Amino acid sequence: MTDTAASPRRGRPRDPGVEDRVFDAAIDLYSRLGWAGFSFESVTRITGVGKAALYRRWPTRSALLVETLRARWYTVGDIDTGRLRDDLRKLADMLLTRLTGPHGSVHLQILMDTRNYDEVRDATAAYRADLVLAGRAMARRAVARGELPPGTNPTLIIDLVVGGIQNHVLATPPELKSKMQEQMHRYGEQLVDAVLAGATARGD
Amino acid sequence: MTDTAASPRRGRPRDPGVEDRVFDAAIDLYSRLGWAGFSFESVTRITGVGKAALYRRWPTRSALLVETLRARWYTVGDIDTGRLRDDLRKLADMLLTRLTGPHGSVHLQILMDTRNYDEVRDATAAYRADLVLAGRAMARRAVARGELPPGTNPTLIIDLVVGGIQNHVLATPPELKSKMQEQMHRYGEQLVDAVLAGATARGD
Repeated sequence: MTDTAASPRRGRPRDPGVEDRVFDAAIDLYSRLGWAGFSFESVTRITGVGKAALYRRWPTRSALLVETLRARWYTVGDIDTGRLRDDLRKLADMLLTRLTGPHGSVHLQILMDTRNYDEVRDATAAYRADLVLAGRAMARRAVARGELPPGTNPTLIIDLVVGGIQNHVLATPPELKSKMQEQMHRYGEQLVDAVLAGATARGD
Repeated sequence: MTDTAASPRRGRPRDPGVEDRVFDAAIDLYSRLGWAGFSFESVTRITGVGKAALYRRWPTRSALLVETLRARWYTVGDIDTGRLRDDLRKLADMLLTRLTGPHGSVHLQILMDTRNYDEVRDATAAYRADLVLAGRAMARRAVARGELPPGTNPTLIIDLVVGGIQNHVLATPPELKSKMQEQMHRYGEQLVDAVLAGATARGD
């Protein structure tokens, strides 16, 4: 494939560090200000990358948001250890790290902006569908390997892990946050073990 | 106890229908407009109940919000069937009904307002603590009845049921919502069964 952004006709070759700088700035901006403050002007000001270069790479704010989320927020599609328990633990750890980290507000910003802006709803629909599909694929691979019974509902596994972790973080009051963070990776393991025990239990 | 609001010195005896009308109006107002639009003026306009009467019963907007949530949103403390599976199914059904119902936005409004307004954070802290305690109590009663192993982590059970249901509803795209609603009570049962199977499985 031809990379038009790197074509000499368009100026300098693409700097491989530019994407990382832009994604770092963009996730920080979005977590603090949401869609209302997510502008190319701000990304240019923070990174020094010119607006023309940004537009060449990301033709719209929506495109930049979706690629930022794929690179810096939930990245379920990258997880494939070959063993379901390890996949789900990685998933749980990723969710815990993101939700309690410096950009944890992204979760709530997406929920709000999806409701308030059609552009964000459309832009994040593909991103959220990717997450759902990646989660289901994780469970289906486990069925194929014989780690889960054939009739397992993949949506159920993913709802329990993703929802359970999200509820754990969001239901913790601020004064207990640091204690929760100390224990969260152990808690994530317990939660995954409980979900797997439920998914593999035989009816009785 | 003396009901001061019904004292002749304060005017007419309290109309038992007033609370219901006020809670109905208040939950609708809050789900649509959040804290920014949650005013005694609006409740008076909708219900015809005078501001003086409202203030006598609910001295602050925060007090009205918390009592409205206790009466019309998540009411975990009311659930006690004597059997954990039935308790959790009732809990799951209540969450599904509320989140997909006409006031489903209350969930997101609370998350947003808790972040944006100290008053709401303080007001809902007690409400949310009640929910956590009621959820844990549900699991502890089951341990006491021998339905769960003694070492069971009650927080884990509740995070899985509450978070799993919330994720199921929130992760469903709008075009699949009606299909999800048709199947949601059956799904809630499956989810509860999976959580219980996981909680009662013996390590192997």
